[in-house]
Amino acid sequence: MKRAGVVGTGLVGGSVGLALRRAGYEVRGFDRDRARAQQALAVGALDDAVEHIDDAARDADVVVVAVPVGDVAEAVGAALDAGALAVTDVGSVKGPVVATVEAARPDLAGRYVGGHPMAGSELDGLDGASADLFTGATWVLTPTERTDPDAFARVRQLVRALGAEAFAVSPEEHDALVAVVSHVPQLAATTLMDVAAARGADHALLLRLAAGGFRDMTRIAAGHPGIWPDICVANRDAIVAALDQYVAALGDVRSMVVDSDRDRLLEVLERARAARRSLPTGIPADIELAEIHVPIPDRPGSLADITTLAGAMGVNIADIEIAHSVEATGGVLVLLLAATDADAFVAALAERGYPAVRTTVP
Amino acid sequence: MKRAGVVGTGLVGGSVGLALRRAGYEVRGFDRDRARAQQALAVGALDDAVEHIDDAARDADVVVVAVPVGDVAEAVGAALDAGALAVTDVGSVKGPVVATVEAARPDLAGRYVGGHPMAGSELDGLDGASADLFTGATWVLTPTERTDPDAFARVRQLVRALGAEAFAVSPEEHDALVAVVSHVPQLAATTLMDVAAARGADHALLLRLAAGGFRDMTRIAAGHPGIWPDICVANRDAIVAALDQYVAALGDVRSMVVDSDRDRLLEVLERARAARRSLPTGIPADIELAEIHVPIPDRPGSLADITTLAGAMGVNIADIEIAHSVEATGGVLVLLLAATDADAFVAALAERGYPAVRTTVP
Repeated sequence: MKRAGVVGTGLVGGSVGLALRRAGYEVRGFDRDRARAQQALAVGALDDAVEHIDDAARDADVVVVAVPVGDVAEAVGAALDAGALAVTDVGSVKGPVVATVEAARPDLAGRYVGGHPMAGSELDGLDGASADLFTGATWVLTPTERTDPDAFARVRQLVRALGAEAFAVSPEEHDALVAVVSHVPQLAATTLMDVAAARGADHALLLRLAAGGFRDMTRIAAGHPGIWPDICVANRDAIVAALDQYVAALGDVRSMVVDSDRDRLLEVLERARAARRSLPTGIPADIELAEIHVPIPDRPGSLADITTLAGAMGVNIADIEIAHSVEATGGVLVLLLAATDADAFVAALAERGYPAVRTTVP
Repeated sequence: MKRAGVVGTGLVGGSVGLALRRAGYEVRGFDRDRARAQQALAVGALDDAVEHIDDAARDADVVVVAVPVGDVAEAVGAALDAGALAVTDVGSVKGPVVATVEAARPDLAGRYVGGHPMAGSELDGLDGASADLFTGATWVLTPTERTDPDAFARVRQLVRALGAEAFAVSPEEHDALVAVVSHVPQLAATTLMDVAAARGADHALLLRLAAGGFRDMTRIAAGHPGIWPDICVANRDAIVAALDQYVAALGDVRSMVVDSDRDRLLEVLERARAARRSLPTGIPADIELAEIHVPIPDRPGSLADITTLAGAMGVNIADIEIAHSVEATGGVLVLLLAATDADAFVAALAERGYPAVRTTVP
């Protein structure tokens, strides 16, 4: 039986524990907050809640460190010192952590492999923990030239046991990628919202004019702000580089607007549109998609009507959102589904009094 | 009986016709595409499909011009020439149109009042037309010092007949506001997607890493690109001003990242968060909101289960989205609802095997 240690038993650590126990690992867990470790034990995420990090790491085949990004390096070091055969973590920044561990534990650092599962960030707290949290998820691993192949194999095996798919890139490459797809988008959304809110006297009317697109773009600005200063500090260089790229590209677009250059604007818009539509969805990439727009009244029941109809017809809804094009009453339900299902679904909606419009997604 | 003319009988024009006929107006409609005018007649959006714009405008109490933004000024002029007592439009840029009309028809321009309903842009085509499209919508009117009070009263009355709420601002103010809440967000999303897509070799992995936040921020980049070059040309000055403000604010944020200034970063993040959370939703502003996160498998039925449960409990879902935190299998359903409903709903979800987490929206 493989032995795993989990350091930090919140949402991600708890989910790792649940999934590993299901996969046949023995799991010992440590959390600085003892009550949380006990709670993890109570929900079945651990075989044992231990009182010291050493007790979670000693003789462990693999230790998963699931603590805030600023505390990762220290916890990894402690787990290495305690004799774990392999250590990984789940933090969203990798380069500085890997560098710190390699500098502080040059002899043991080969047993540490940085990791970052692309799952779970939407949830918060042990109540959301699930053995299925990582099923099918992309899990980035960041080995370096100093990484011990045996430790890497253990961590890969762990990721597979969690049901996720491992991708290896360098720590620097990881950090550059998440700067582009996560950190800069967060700062861009925050800034856009802040600029809009700063208009003062116009604010109330501006908020009334803010329709679906603005709401989408600024949604992440409504999230927990607490984690972002640490991430900005930890991933500073990659974020600054990606911000500079973004601002330079905005400068290009500004020139096109100044020049009223319809052709170049259309070119950028079409290129971005094609790229956006190639983002993976819950539907296999080779299936043609359709978008259905359904105006709905804002009352209990209409959403259920529509989604129940889809369920009854065996239509899988890959994506759903409400675009509030009007304030306080109703909105437009935007559904993404397989194109082959679309016409029948639109017809069935119309029969039930929901006028729907289909848009082809090329 | 009041007489209205509708010029352009697509989604918006058709919806105006349906709503006005329901409100007791007699509606004559013109469309350059005769087949479309006939279709509007067939669906009951018109009393009469006429062959010339003059026939729609002559003796009309009010004419609504619902054509692409580049064609508005000419159609408004023709309607004024034909003797309409009041003319309005539904274009998304106002300043240049108002200026063109006032320059071309100095004697008649007082009868024209620019308009912009904040509804309908999510849909496309007459199939989506609905008499309820504008119910509760915000409808901006842009009178100037030359506006004839009688014409303004007619247009206001028309907006009220459509079930919408009219707000008057100057054309320039309107254009500045929509630049901030609509045009610059569109360009910002397009640019962000384009920068990400330009990473070439990393592209495939980058797309796998793109989680909910990135998807939200770039969703509008997937929309119809065709309308945007015209909008950028028509609203050039306001867009450039808003872009400059946005880029300057991004520069400030960049400095905070460079300086690792956690305090200032947190301040901006918290300010933007508060502003984002004050955006109007489908629930009255004085009701406390809660966000519920529910991990769901990506298969027909689970969405229906959850929304049906809400309907059965009388819980109104003000906002809904699927955050695809993992690729190809499942996601997290994010629901916004009244805080007073949240605990009972979370408990009911848990009973049905959906572990949900509640987040308070302050």
